[in-house]
This record gives sequence, C-alpha cells and structure tokens, in this order.
Amino acid sequence: MTALVSEILFPGKDGVGTVQRSILPGGLRVVTETMPTVRSVAIGMWVGIGSRDEAPEHTGATHFLEHLLFKGTPTRDSLAISSAIEGIGGEINAFTAKEYTCYYARVLDDDLPLAIDVLADVVTSSLITPEDVDAERGVILEEIAMHDDDPSDVVHEQFAAELYGDTPIGRPILGTVDTINALSRDRIVEYYRRFYLPTRTVVSVAGNIVHERVVELVAAAYERAGRLGGETAPVPPRISGPGIAEKSGVRVLDRPTEQANVVLGTTAISRTDDRRFALGVMNAALGGGMSSRLFQEIREKRGLAYSTYSYASQYSDTGQFGIYVGCLPSKIDDVLKICRDEVARIVAHGISEDEIQRGKGQMRGGLVLGLEDTGSRMSRIGKGELVYDRLLTVDEVLDRIDAVTPDEILEVARDVLQRPFTLAVIGPYGDKDFSSFIA
Amino acid sequence: MTALVSEILFPGKDGVGTVQRSILPGGLRVVTETMPTVRSVAIGMWVGIGSRDEAPEHTGATHFLEHLLFKGTPTRDSLAISSAIEGIGGEINAFTAKEYTCYYARVLDDDLPLAIDVLADVVTSSLITPEDVDAERGVILEEIAMHDDDPSDVVHEQFAAELYGDTPIGRPILGTVDTINALSRDRIVEYYRRFYLPTRTVVSVAGNIVHERVVELVAAAYERAGRLGGETAPVPPRISGPGIAEKSGVRVLDRPTEQANVVLGTTAISRTDDRRFALGVMNAALGGGMSSRLFQEIREKRGLAYSTYSYASQYSDTGQFGIYVGCLPSKIDDVLKICRDEVARIVAHGISEDEIQRGKGQMRGGLVLGLEDTGSRMSRIGKGELVYDRLLTVDEVLDRIDAVTPDEILEVARDVLQRPFTLAVIGPYGDKDFSSFIA
Repeated sequence: MTALVSEILFPGKDGVGTVQRSILPGGLRVVTETMPTVRSVAIGMWVGIGSRDEAPEHTGATHFLEHLLFKGTPTRDSLAISSAIEGIGGEINAFTAKEYTCYYARVLDDDLPLAIDVLADVVTSSLITPEDVDAERGVILEEIAMHDDDPSDVVHEQFAAELYGDTPIGRPILGTVDTINALSRDRIVEYYRRFYLPTRTVVSVAGNIVHERVVELVAAAYERAGRLGGETAPVPPRISGPGIAEKSGVRVLDRPTEQANVVLGTTAISRTDDRRFALGVMNAALGGGMSSRLFQEIREKRGLAYSTYSYASQYSDTGQFGIYVGCLPSKIDDVLKICRDEVARIVAHGISEDEIQRGKGQMRGGLVLGLEDTGSRMSRIGKGELVYDRLLTVDEVLDRIDAVTPDEILEVARDVLQRPFTLAVIGPYGDKDFSSFIA
Repeated sequence: MTALVSEILFPGKDGVGTVQRSILPGGLRVVTETMPTVRSVAIGMWVGIGSRDEAPEHTGATHFLEHLLFKGTPTRDSLAISSAIEGIGGEINAFTAKEYTCYYARVLDDDLPLAIDVLADVVTSSLITPEDVDAERGVILEEIAMHDDDPSDVVHEQFAAELYGDTPIGRPILGTVDTINALSRDRIVEYYRRFYLPTRTVVSVAGNIVHERVVELVAAAYERAGRLGGETAPVPPRISGPGIAEKSGVRVLDRPTEQANVVLGTTAISRTDDRRFALGVMNAALGGGMSSRLFQEIREKRGLAYSTYSYASQYSDTGQFGIYVGCLPSKIDDVLKICRDEVARIVAHGISEDEIQRGKGQMRGGLVLGLEDTGSRMSRIGKGELVYDRLLTVDEVLDRIDAVTPDEILEVARDVLQRPFTLAVIGPYGDKDFSSFIA
C-alpha cells in the first residue's frame, strides 16, 4: 500500500531529526522524526476531537469514549490490550484535551510493530459493549470524585468555567456526575463513528525508526481494520473560530481547605497568534520559574506561598493567561495585592533587559532539553500536524524566540494584562467579597 | 588537584555507559556515566542525611534545611541561584527523603561548569541567615498545608505512621506545624554542620561528559569553598540496622472527602535483600500496572476505582509493601475484600507463568526505557553509590530479574504478605470499624 503523498518536512542533520510526512489513502496522516541514537520509540495516535466538540448535554462524552477504547476489540479484551504492551516493559495510555484526544505508547524499538498494531486496533476497532459502558461509567465517576478532592485541580476548572461561561470550552472535560449518568451507549458510539475517522487522525512516531517502515506498519494495521482506502483528504486544522467574548467575574467555592487555591487571569491569544513567543518571554519573567517576579516576591521575600506560577495556554481561537497561588487563607489579600501590583508594573514598564535575556534562555533551553526524549518529540510533531497549518522546525522556533523585541513584549503584555480579570478561589471564605481584586 | 582513588566501575560499550568513580581528598565521591549521544547533562549532589536522622523534637529539620540552602551564599542571593540556571534554560531543585537528600540540576552540556559551581556553592556555603529562616518557615508551613489538602498524599503518610509508629522512619518528612514553628536557626545550622560533609556526599553526573573533566570541576568548586583536603574516607553506606518490629493497626482519618483513600500493607524487605527482584515480579502481577490483578479486578471488571496499584519500597533495614485504592466511600468494603482475596490467592498459589514472564518483561523494559534520560542515569549511580556497598550495572540488574524463579516469588510473597497487616483510611467514616480487614 503506497502513500498518496510523501514528503520530507525537515531534512535533519546526519540522519538525526529528519521529519517526514505521508498521507495514506483515506486521508490518514503519518508523521515521523528520526532519533537514531535512542533505543525507544514513542507512538501517538492523535484524533481531532476534544471536549469542545460536545453538545452541552453530552459533556464528558469524549473522555468517556477515550476510556472505553481500552476495554476491548474483536481480537483483544482489556487484559490483552494492556498486557501486550506492559509485558514488554512499555507503557500505553491516553488523554483527552479540549481540542484533541491522544492515544500513545512508548516501547523499545524492536517492539514498534506490536505497539502500532495494538494502538491502531484500539483506535479503529473498539467494541464499546453495553457491559463495558456500565463498568466504565463507575470508573469515570470515581475519576470525577478524585478530581473534586484536589483543590489545586478544581480551581483551574472553576477558572475556565468563569472565564468562558457555559460554552463548550468552559465546561469540564470529565463531565459532571449528571451528564455521565445520563450518557447512553448509543450517544457515545455516535461520537466514535462521527469523529474517529482516518481523515481526522494523525499517527506520530519518534525514535529509532525508518519512515517508510512506519508507514507500512500503520497502513497494514489500518487495512486490517478496513479503514484504508479512498482519496479523501485530511480534515484541515481547527484554526480560528468565532472567538470568545471578554468576560470578567469572580467565582468562590467555600470549602474548609487548609490552603486557599487561587487562579487570577484573563483570556489571551490563540495558538496561531505570532505574538505567542513574546507572551512566552513575558510569562517567564512574571511567573515562569523560581527566578520570576511572582516566585521572588510571594515566596522568596515574603514566605506567603509554597507554589506560585503563571502560565499561558492556547487554543485554536482563544487562550488563557493565569496566575496560580496556593496560600494559607489568611494571606490571600496580601498575595492578590502582589499579583495585581506585579501585573500593573509590567503593563506600565514592560520587563527588564535581564529578564528578557533570561526568559529567552529559559524558553530556548527548555525546548532543547525537552526534546531529548522520544515522547516529547512525538508530541511536538503529532500535535503540530493536527493543529497547525505548518509545523515549525525546532530551529524556526528558536529563531522566533530570539527575534522577540522589548516592544513586542510590552505590546502583548498591554493587550492581555489589561483585559478584564477573572478570579477563581477555593477556600474557607464564606461570602467574602473579592470583587476589588478584579477591578 | 588529583583524586586519591579513581576507578572504572563499568567499562561500557563504544564509549557509552562507562561508569567511573573518583574519591577526592577529604572523602568526596564523584561518580559519572557517559552518554555521548545526548546534549544534556544531569548533576546530582547526594547527601547521606534524611528525616530518619532527626531527633523527634526536630522533625522536619532536614527538609527545612534543604529549602534554606537555596536562599543564599556569600556570592549569590536566592535570585542569583535560580536565575543562573533558569537563564540558560536549565532546571535546579532538590528533594528530601527519609535516608538522603538530593540537590540536582539538568542543563545543556556546555553549561556543566556553571551548574556544578552553583550546586556546590549551595550545598557547601549556604548562609542560612535568621531572616531566611523566618521567611522560609512560612513557606514550609504552606507546603504542609498544601500536603494536608491532598488526601492521596496524606494517606501514605498516615500508613507509614501506623506501620512504624512514633519512630524516626514513621514521622513525616515535612515535620508538623508545631515542630516547624519550634525549630531554631541554631538547631538547623547544627544539622548542616554535622551532616553536610564531603565524606557524606556523592556527586553524580550523567550525560555527554568526560569523567576527568567532571572531577576537575567538582574539585575546583569544593576547593573554592575550602572543603577539599585531608585523607578522610567516605562514610560507609547506611546498611541494615536494628530492624523494625512487625506491627499491625488501623488508622482512620474521618474527613468529608468525595473519595475514600486507602493504603493496606505490611513491612517488607530491605534495600539489600536479594529477594527484592522476586518481590518486584510479584508486585508487578498484583498491582504493578493496568494488566495487574488489582487493576483488572477492581477497575476493569467492577468499575470500583479510578486509581489502584501496589508498590514495594525499600530502606536500609526495612521496607514497605502497600496497596493503594481511591474509591467512593460506599465501595470500600467491596474494594478491601478484593484486595484481601487477591493477597490470599497469591499466598496460596503464587502467580502464573504468564504473570511471571509479564512481570519480568515489565521490570526489564521499564529499566531500559527509564535509562534514556540523563536524570534517571544520574539518580541510579548517585543514589546507588550512596546507599549500596557496590553499584550493580544495568546488565547485572537485568540478569537478576531474569534469574528470579517461581519458588522465590512464592517464598517472598509468603514472607511479606503473611505479616500483620496495617490499614490507613481517609474518608467520611465516623467511627466505622475496619479491624476485620487486617485480621
């Protein structure tokens, strides 16, 4: 079975870092990156469906489906799926995000054929029996309960809910007890049939591999599943969209926790916005590490928290910028005042030349150090192929970081940090009024 | 400055995986492993002091000290320490365990000299000013509060407390609010002076390095700190000890959590017990992954939990074997019954040939796949040098795993799993009686 289109996206150097892509009949994409000095290989199957694609009454369906895919196929039950990979010392798992779902494995290079076979079987040929749906519903309800017991997790979900309101991107990936109890097998199977198509799937593989061999293995596995053929083109990436209205609000969950958990932030820029590199440098300076302003002011100088950081995350048509702090309940006013003061200082003056150099070094080094393992490289090319028009090479990303100017940082800081603020708080606060902190 | 003793512990192959050790004047050990195909390097400074070495009234001193070491030296304040490493995209951090403390960094290979200089400065020359002690006391109290808000974390601590009673190994690494508030600067400095000696320190480095160059850099950094010299021999590893009496008990923390968190287990074997490989294979079969008995019975067949696993951990003179489950409070009787039934089945019949093969494959593959990153290799040789008489090579470990027999598995299972059981539970249980589950 030959690929319809096959191209070298990046030639690499001396056989290292060569990125290639083939499109198989039926629209399935295979992207690979060579890492000839490692013995492992990471394989991901990325499907372009996330919790954003759910109708409100089906909240949690995508994640429920992800669980069900490990329950069995015509040739493997749940034990056969996990033991095939674990018995060779590998790992297999999956995760569901708001805009995509990923099934992945990491094994020794000799075991690549087996890993591709198992993953493709799971992704294309799950049975989703009524018994499996019932048993797994219990597991999902347990996962929701576990999540609810972790305030540092819940606060991020509450922040998204307040920031985006009752929209697909504002609702929880896991769903709620009510939506999970109400989901029928038919509904879940319908999502599986509608979205788990070769045209919406990217197989990404990084490690000690040869591209053509990977393509052969993937094609054979999809052919066995009857999912290969036709001239259909891949579905284009989810880029832009209606956008998200700017919103501001406070959400307080009154709970008797030892620490208050706080996220303060705004909407931010989308995944394809060129200013994301400038925002990254600003984020490094504000709360990106131990040398950042928030860590230094809140933890090092004042001892007001153990964990504090800021983050920028991106979706196809929006993004988030947030500051997280966990602190004793009595410290929250001081902590929030520092956060607002540091934000105001950056809006007024930008960040220093030292901070810019450090922020760039942090992004550059983090990228390079992060790409030594097969899993990170597999994710970079797999997610990249699914969500971008064109995958940037590592060198292109490094160049973009280097090219960021002080003016660009100030511009994006003023855009993002002057939007209306939203605040989510979990802690023993009764009806305490936090509205002054988002004014 | 020449090393007093320098030897090749393992020759490696084609320049890969060569492990070398040098002992510097003053008793400081340097162990390295070559990974010529990577661009990063991981550096660890392992000090042979842990929370086990604390007097009861100083519980938490070792961990408090670990925090304080990042606060400043004569030449670097806290910001200078973190920004030196973060500005080049590296990471620097530390952790405190019951029997050792480790300071580590991961950077690009060109930055090795800087990373060694910063880590050695922190470990040898911390100022520990009274102001730093006061500010950091707040941070530690925040860390304790954060920990207390995570029931899946607290349950393990409660289990250790019940299993080992009020002994150094049974007390929490973080300390308590009372011990942290009571700790004086003088007391902490006394621990620093008494334990942070070159004779108790191992520097381990893995990555794209040359051993002799690493030794030079470490020697120069310790010389600058005035900590190099003399003929003192390294302190021998902490091996064996008085042992821990077998104990059995139930500890229930009544909390309004969504999930019950449970650890059921026993004391187990020490770090140098040759049966640890057989116990590892048994553990893989009982609760070591998705294909294990506990995962299959509790989650896959019955949908009673999201997370369940078993583990075996080792100290110098004892160990733990435990089963963890997080489940809705109403499911706990069913879950504990399954746990006890599976334990009883293994005690009666051992594990199947399939499970033995899978367990060995899991341990072998996990070891090999885990050793692709510099951090894992650095940890293996650094911790190994500190706690073992002799470091096993990866091939020796693989041989030991292969050599495990069904009889050995049955023997160690019967030894460990027939000891008195201890149970820790966190959940909304009032005064519910759990004693039948440890009978």
